[in-house]
Amino acid sequence: MIYFDSDYTAGAHPEVLERLCATNAEHTVGYGCDSYTASAVELIKSACGVDSAKVYLLVGGTQTNATVIDGILARHQGVLAAESGHIAVHESGAIEACGHKVLTLPHYQGKVKASDVRSYIDEFYRDETYEHMVAPGMLYISFPTEYGTVYTLKELTELSEICHSADIPLYIDGARLAYGLAAASNDVTLSDIARLADVFYIGGTKVGALFGEAVVVTNPKLLHHFTPLIKQHGALLAKGRLLGVQFEALFRDNLYFRIGQKAVSQALIIKEAFVSRGYTAVVDSPTNQQFFLLPNTLIDHLRSNNISFETWGTRGVEQTTVRFVTGWATTQSDIETIISLL
Amino acid sequence: MIYFDSDYTAGAHPEVLERLCATNAEHTVGYGCDSYTASAVELIKSACGVDSAKVYLLVGGTQTNATVIDGILARHQGVLAAESGHIAVHESGAIEACGHKVLTLPHYQGKVKASDVRSYIDEFYRDETYEHMVAPGMLYISFPTEYGTVYTLKELTELSEICHSADIPLYIDGARLAYGLAAASNDVTLSDIARLADVFYIGGTKVGALFGEAVVVTNPKLLHHFTPLIKQHGALLAKGRLLGVQFEALFRDNLYFRIGQKAVSQALIIKEAFVSRGYTAVVDSPTNQQFFLLPNTLIDHLRSNNISFETWGTRGVEQTTVRFVTGWATTQSDIETIISLL
Amino acid sequence: MIYFDSDYTAGAHPEVLERLCATNAEHTVGYGCDSYTASAVELIKSACGVDSAKVYLLVGGTQTNATVIDGILARHQGVLAAESGHIAVHESGAIEACGHKVLTLPHYQGKVKASDVRSYIDEFYRDETYEHMVAPGMLYISFPTEYGTVYTLKELTELSEICHSADIPLYIDGARLAYGLAAASNDVTLSDIARLADVFYIGGTKVGALFGEAVVVTNPKLLHHFTPLIKQHGALLAKGRLLGVQFEALFRDNLYFRIGQKAVSQALIIKEAFVSRGYTAVVDSPTNQQFFLLPNTLIDHLRSNNISFETWGTRGVEQTTVRFVTGWATTQSDIETIISLL
Amino acid sequence: MIYFDSDYTAGAHPEVLERLCATNAEHTVGYGCDSYTASAVELIKSACGVDSAKVYLLVGGTQTNATVIDGILARHQGVLAAESGHIAVHESGAIEACGHKVLTLPHYQGKVKASDVRSYIDEFYRDETYEHMVAPGMLYISFPTEYGTVYTLKELTELSEICHSADIPLYIDGARLAYGLAAASNDVTLSDIARLADVFYIGGTKVGALFGEAVVVTNPKLLHHFTPLIKQHGALLAKGRLLGVQFEALFRDNLYFRIGQKAVSQALIIKEAFVSRGYTAVVDSPTNQQFFLLPNTLIDHLRSNNISFETWGTRGVEQTTVRFVTGWATTQSDIETIISLL
Repeated sequence: MIYFDSDYTAGAHPEVLERLCATNAEHTVGYGCDSYTASAVELIKSACGVDSAKVYLLVGGTQTNATVIDGILARHQGVLAAESGHIAVHESGAIEACGHKVLTLPHYQGKVKASDVRSYIDEFYRDETYEHMVAPGMLYISFPTEYGTVYTLKELTELSEICHSADIPLYIDGARLAYGLAAASNDVTLSDIARLADVFYIGGTKVGALFGEAVVVTNPKLLHHFTPLIKQHGALLAKGRLLGVQFEALFRDNLYFRIGQKAVSQALIIKEAFVSRGYTAVVDSPTNQQFFLLPNTLIDHLRSNNISFETWGTRGVEQTTVRFVTGWATTQSDIETIISLL
Repeated sequence: MIYFDSDYTAGAHPEVLERLCATNAEHTVGYGCDSYTASAVELIKSACGVDSAKVYLLVGGTQTNATVIDGILARHQGVLAAESGHIAVHESGAIEACGHKVLTLPHYQGKVKASDVRSYIDEFYRDETYEHMVAPGMLYISFPTEYGTVYTLKELTELSEICHSADIPLYIDGARLAYGLAAASNDVTLSDIARLADVFYIGGTKVGALFGEAVVVTNPKLLHHFTPLIKQHGALLAKGRLLGVQFEALFRDNLYFRIGQKAVSQALIIKEAFVSRGYTAVVDSPTNQQFFLLPNTLIDHLRSNNISFETWGTRGVEQTTVRFVTGWATTQSDIETIISLL
Repeated sequence: MIYFDSDYTAGAHPEVLERLCATNAEHTVGYGCDSYTASAVELIKSACGVDSAKVYLLVGGTQTNATVIDGILARHQGVLAAESGHIAVHESGAIEACGHKVLTLPHYQGKVKASDVRSYIDEFYRDETYEHMVAPGMLYISFPTEYGTVYTLKELTELSEICHSADIPLYIDGARLAYGLAAASNDVTLSDIARLADVFYIGGTKVGALFGEAVVVTNPKLLHHFTPLIKQHGALLAKGRLLGVQFEALFRDNLYFRIGQKAVSQALIIKEAFVSRGYTAVVDSPTNQQFFLLPNTLIDHLRSNNISFETWGTRGVEQTTVRFVTGWATTQSDIETIISLL
Repeated sequence: MIYFDSDYTAGAHPEVLERLCATNAEHTVGYGCDSYTASAVELIKSACGVDSAKVYLLVGGTQTNATVIDGILARHQGVLAAESGHIAVHESGAIEACGHKVLTLPHYQGKVKASDVRSYIDEFYRDETYEHMVAPGMLYISFPTEYGTVYTLKELTELSEICHSADIPLYIDGARLAYGLAAASNDVTLSDIARLADVFYIGGTKVGALFGEAVVVTNPKLLHHFTPLIKQHGALLAKGRLLGVQFEALFRDNLYFRIGQKAVSQALIIKEAFVSRGYTAVVDSPTNQQFFLLPNTLIDHLRSNNISFETWGTRGVEQTTVRFVTGWATTQSDIETIISLL
């Protein structure tokens, strides 16, 4: 079976696993106070180009979003997000469970528009009853989005400026950050992200780690006393060094970026193969997630040949949208096989 | 350096790590819907002797406590616990963050007394203003306790009966369950735990896993719709099979119990060594945690000989209480070395 | 100045105030355990025709919604509501502050459609990832709605059937219930409400009380142990008899219904006056709230003649939507004055 | 029947009720934006001698405590309070429902000791695992306390200094503030309270209002954006002017202080009567609450002569502690009657 279901179906990248094995017998202090974590933090800060940043290593994505948002918002505030955003749809209400409303904006292939953010904030404060509504207290976006799309540097700069002029932080969910940075068209660097966002996270789970997300706080006014919140949210691992070891492996020799580039280039080969044969890419995604509208006959043909992938939404009468995702574990042979089946 | 600081200072038991490595390249579905998790669940149910139990695999201890307690209590209820209980002291307010008060009872070397539980409940409902107070909605105990002590079967039976006569669930935190079951004096089996508790968890993090806690729900009335709560609490791992693989390894050939027995027998050798030399065991612990009142000179002597361990509370003028903990990684040679230094 | 701004701009109806004054010097026990409250509860149950109902007297509307919803929903659930619903828009995030998402449905002049409710529930459980989303745990509607419209008995029956077939409670916000029951076209009785809803509240604040909302629980499975929740939510008045005295006054001689009928008939006279002069009623409201699209010149003319009312949304270039609301304090002379100014 | 049960058993002081009646027919804007509220705020600020203070009028005491504490604490913090404090015992878990632990201190007839506060804070930050515990984020005291006792100016100054040196706010629950200020021995003025506390509230419910508590925020760093929190907590009354009218009446001609003085002087006459006859005052309370240890025979004698009062705790075999409370409604004749019965 060849898997294009998601980027978290296999275990850890061999280089990451190798480091976990190599350090397994060592004893360290717990809860992230170990030297591996310290080293990983330094590597991440260096990769971001922000010496003054604070970096925290958490376990999973929903957990990270809930912990960060809970730590940033005041009690009367909510978080702005695309109506397709992960926190708005697929986190089992984790944000509301912390007491905060997700204030939704229209999305354009997963992205929010700067003008919509500005209008929302302006109209909110123009409403005489605004104290009876939930104040926009931060902006959540993801890079890349749920649709695999990425913001341009210009778009990201505009969002950042709007947020800062409204005195609300910009938070970027980077669950698949490596794939966004490696996108064909992308003109945003990790340094740009670190400069334009107030907080963001570098996703490990979907980029070769067993698990782990690195929160980078560049705005020094935010998230003081974050460790107790991390613990409240169940994200403080006793064997915290597991996160340190993995992120050290990911950032020591640019493994994180290499995984991103490899997977994106594979995804684009698949995209080209489908499109050149006349199939529609329903989203023009430049990253490791590709969405195609395929005849059900082709879907069945591929599946009967041991190609595994997800349908996106419900199966249509004749055609259905499907998603193909590449990751660290996708091989050259996987790519060749699927193309040969088209 | 030889470490007696805690049972989570090293990585995973080699048999666990071996399985993680052996399965690393496989692709599976996410979020615990994989076959490893299914297999682990069956092994755990079998070990507990309760076919009808529901088993859920979570990541860490504080997270597990918060998720279970949040899932059980009604909004007007709190959780009874020893004032020394982990949820009362060392979880950064995770229980309160879910909206619930921890109602504390006196502790006796970490244990609560059945009569105190009964009095609390009786007096609560006898108070005319009880609706202005927080109703006791469940009982939390740990086995073994923070002091390494274990409940006898008689004590556990009494607690269970009191809870059930008051119609509140009994929840047992088994972060170190293996060490309790292996205690010298212990007359409680895993089946007893499963029979007497309504919910409990089998700790993996401190018993040879990289991380992981298995929640066993034996009361069929409790914790329906638990998966969304697990996700809300950040405990639903994308690569959920990591938990399945580890618990399968721990329960396939009784590894879980072997780790417990080995570590407890080592701890008791250390205890005997200290006590026979005239040092006081400040708690009569039969498990893998041992507490001694030692002269500061001996403490300094041991530490200067690369023996690492924690002080328990603040350093005294001449004597200080210290804690020695054994785990899967404690070797025969470690034991011999420390004894030779006494 | 003549006020059509809202139905809460004046104090209490004279009959209500008279009872507060008459009983002021009496001493009673606190927290709603007094005989006035008991009497009010009996009168309300009798008016609803449900002897077995439980009735609780709270202080305000947002508070009542938050307390009821918090008491009904399980932790993984949210509340379905029209996107125009009060809980979705104008409660400062009080529902989310309790940990629950408001799941919004399209609205049709403030009403939700039974088919939309059914689709939402069906599609939710058809989605394979539904455990990663927020489960619909109850339906919130208001009678009348924010737009002054009312559900027909057929519509209400359908909503009730859908809720019960999906095993989720139907909750009706009756902040302005008296005006809905008195609506020209209305075919729904208080008994119907009590029969079709699982919980609802009878609004006092906007119908002649100083404050106060009576929660009626007809589904015996819901809201056990509600008093501590009422207190948690700040709704348990020390001088609880104030609520009892007021609701007794409102329900003793049908004052509640008389206020509704009087105000609605006045509102319909105003409506007729505007419409017959060619102005548009932007909502076909049969209750005490009327919405007209008026030329700005007329708006200014009325206001300069001491008629006070609210604009609905922002002022247009030439025309603006305005709201006229009648209440217990609206006089015959008020009606004549405004009509004379058209 | 003569009532000494509590200070909230009767309605409003006649001067307060008279103002409610006099203003009842007026129309005002809602939610506390009316001129009566503005006037009350000015009178309160003037009485406190702090022009720059912010004043908010809420409905009830538990609600006020929950709203203020929820607004002040960061997510990782708890509130220090006497173990006998109202928030620790008698608020149905309202503080925990907001997500915060009540961190209890020993009490001495209801009061906390400055040295205990200091030790708690010092020891907290000295503990290496403090990030795994709940940080003390504010201090809650009441003036007078649950036992009717008051802090001296020296004690209050010490508490204030400790709080400010630890950078945590001091919050004073003044549910019965008038009675504390009127205490025989009291050397604390309202201006002292306003100067030493960061936030406090002036209780109306127990001092002659139908309901109402005035929160005074003197620390300009605290409780920005408080109105949405007031609404979230169900404390924003639609007819907000009811609070304004009442507090205006209470503060216009010093009615608030007159009520306090009258009730305290009556309570001290009762105290003198009991003590001079050899009965024990179990607390040396200088305020309107008096606690006596009485023979059950006397208790029964008084009750059979229509004197109503509460027992404090459970009835003893021969003697029982009882509480006598005076209020605005206690008459000279009430006092004479009870004394005649001793």
